[in-house]
Amino acid sequence: MATIDRWLLPDGIEEVLPPEAARIEVARRDILDLFHRWGYAFVVTPHIEFLESLLTGAGQDLDLRTFKVTDPNTGRQMGFRADITPQVARIDAHSMKVGGPNRLCYAGSVLHARPRALSTSRSPIQLGAELYGDATPASDLEIISLMLETLELANVADVHMDLGHVGIYRGLARAAALSGDAEQALFDALQRKAIDEVESLTAGLPAALASMLRALVELCGGREVLDLARAALVEAPDDVHQALDELIAIADHLSARYPELPLYFDLGELRGYHYHTGAVFAAFVPGVGQAIAQGGRYDDIGGDFGRARPATGFSTDLKTLVTLGDMSSVAFEPGVWAPDNHDLQLWQVVRTLREDGVRVIQAMPGQDIAMAREAGCDRELVLQGGRWEVRSLTI
Amino acid sequence: MATIDRWLLPDGIEEVLPPEAARIEVARRDILDLFHRWGYAFVVTPHIEFLESLLTGAGQDLDLRTFKVTDPNTGRQMGFRADITPQVARIDAHSMKVGGPNRLCYAGSVLHARPRALSTSRSPIQLGAELYGDATPASDLEIISLMLETLELANVADVHMDLGHVGIYRGLARAAALSGDAEQALFDALQRKAIDEVESLTAGLPAALASMLRALVELCGGREVLDLARAALVEAPDDVHQALDELIAIADHLSARYPELPLYFDLGELRGYHYHTGAVFAAFVPGVGQAIAQGGRYDDIGGDFGRARPATGFSTDLKTLVTLGDMSSVAFEPGVWAPDNHDLQLWQVVRTLREDGVRVIQAMPGQDIAMAREAGCDRELVLQGGRWEVRSLTI
Repeated sequence: MATIDRWLLPDGIEEVLPPEAARIEVARRDILDLFHRWGYAFVVTPHIEFLESLLTGAGQDLDLRTFKVTDPNTGRQMGFRADITPQVARIDAHSMKVGGPNRLCYAGSVLHARPRALSTSRSPIQLGAELYGDATPASDLEIISLMLETLELANVADVHMDLGHVGIYRGLARAAALSGDAEQALFDALQRKAIDEVESLTAGLPAALASMLRALVELCGGREVLDLARAALVEAPDDVHQALDELIAIADHLSARYPELPLYFDLGELRGYHYHTGAVFAAFVPGVGQAIAQGGRYDDIGGDFGRARPATGFSTDLKTLVTLGDMSSVAFEPGVWAPDNHDLQLWQVVRTLREDGVRVIQAMPGQDIAMAREAGCDRELVLQGGRWEVRSLTI
Repeated sequence: MATIDRWLLPDGIEEVLPPEAARIEVARRDILDLFHRWGYAFVVTPHIEFLESLLTGAGQDLDLRTFKVTDPNTGRQMGFRADITPQVARIDAHSMKVGGPNRLCYAGSVLHARPRALSTSRSPIQLGAELYGDATPASDLEIISLMLETLELANVADVHMDLGHVGIYRGLARAAALSGDAEQALFDALQRKAIDEVESLTAGLPAALASMLRALVELCGGREVLDLARAALVEAPDDVHQALDELIAIADHLSARYPELPLYFDLGELRGYHYHTGAVFAAFVPGVGQAIAQGGRYDDIGGDFGRARPATGFSTDLKTLVTLGDMSSVAFEPGVWAPDNHDLQLWQVVRTLREDGVRVIQAMPGQDIAMAREAGCDRELVLQGGRWEVRSLTI
């Protein structure tokens, strides 16, 4: 490999330089502090685990996105985490065993063997919050509100939100007693809003069920969709009504809390359908095709770790937030320049300044005072009457 | 795989739960802030890279410790970083191209396919600082001082330091014109202080050189070692004298700055010899066999990325520091308990409290006020005369 190639990074794998890295660090701290103020406790999950643990409940999509290696110790397959959510679910289900509601949050790099979409990163910094132990819309509402506060903290403008509930399709599909393959085919057709396919796939079903499943294709838009759904799904089984009630309750509280927030509903689009079990949501901004933050309810995931618990949560990518968020660049306090001198008194003065929070940069041999400004300093340490004193830079 | 196995983590791979995770986060921030006050700019390096980049200049040891996968995009071999130092060297050599001294720092997980030692972690959180562009002992002194301040900040007690300089052995081996194999054999024997082997391996050399190489075995101990070395190496070539002068200059300044710090010297032990080029150093505490922080000069590493630069730096493991450091557990300010009520006025009061930095935990349906204490709250929000007010918990 030639020298010129050595610094090439793989596609979708980035390094972050100053001052961008400082912006990421500041955003990370601000958001984790926000999570703390909402009562979410920080956890650190491993970057690598046995594959079975990582892929629990997560479906094939995550499997394809996961880098795999063999553990030299045991010969077992391990994977690099492509998603932190299943790890936190394990912590709640197994490691912590809290009886009531349990709020956890995390921030860390994940790796995707294949990017989610062309030109997206394969190494996002996933940051999120999860609420376990409550099955009511109260926890969905808290998680969605926390997601919106996170985006606001990151100064992401023009956010709009998509809301849905996989319980509506699930309840209708169950009532139709569709087989696994048929359900999957219908699900795929719904995602593409392929109305002709949906019609032919539901042709053999009782008329009421068929018409409700077909209605899902067009039940997308603003708040009026929820009223249309009430009318269109009036003959649906109870669990479908319950799902719709939950969705309406969440939507109404959100509209009250965030009256300016554009809310869209899509009862046929089922983001993360394979592991989600209730309300699902995603935040978008104009000009970005992918959701910038997303989440939903996934009540069953903990069961694989020995304790099924209600769960809802959201996640986002810190790098994306910092890129989109109109954060002013991180402004450091100007520092103090110290000369290239190893006098012990100078050392003690420098140490005290640093203990007081001042940034002090000591010159290396041959470095001129002219470099002090470049290093972000507006003052220097000079020896005056036998004492080291801070004075303004005169050049 | 049975349910009971799913939560098993691979040997040496850990998850960190509350409140330990909060202690790690606090220590991370405190140390990165310390680095900032010393003028070190934060960078974020990728968890995965092409193998050639990761292993540049690092020697076989790192190769064996690196997990490898094939990039599905390119078919090329990639590795998960087992050490962040070579990545930061690439950033200095290639991505930043600063002309003068350049100070960089980082903090992030690394993965070791094999642990450094039995029972050590395979997933440490590596945290370190690097100073590029200065070849004098001034930068070694700065890095070692910063390492000591880091340990002090983490409240690690009873630190002692080992100091050496690979230039002494290198200069003698060069003067002896030893072949690669012979130099390696002698190096190995020196590490084991196998005096008999050192004698036989140097038997064919000129008497003065042989006696100087043999002297290295016993040149270990306190400050007196440096004076003994002066005498024993009087006939050594100039570069050996220069190395010894550098070591003495660093040691004297360190003793002046940290008069209580026990300093040990070992001119035969050559930690990281394969890539180090000058002063090397490591910090130890009683009862821990491994160094808890270590570093040294590695002037050649950037060359593989197109720009050879002088370099010195240190690194440590955040998890170890938090375990060893006698940090009092992170004390959170007591929070405020909010009832399970979605009244918009309550929401606004809660929001304002959180904006003011107060931790507010909202009850989920069915959660009794008795759980407020458990959640770390000492106050609650109650509706009094139509207004939500904070009052002390009465239970």
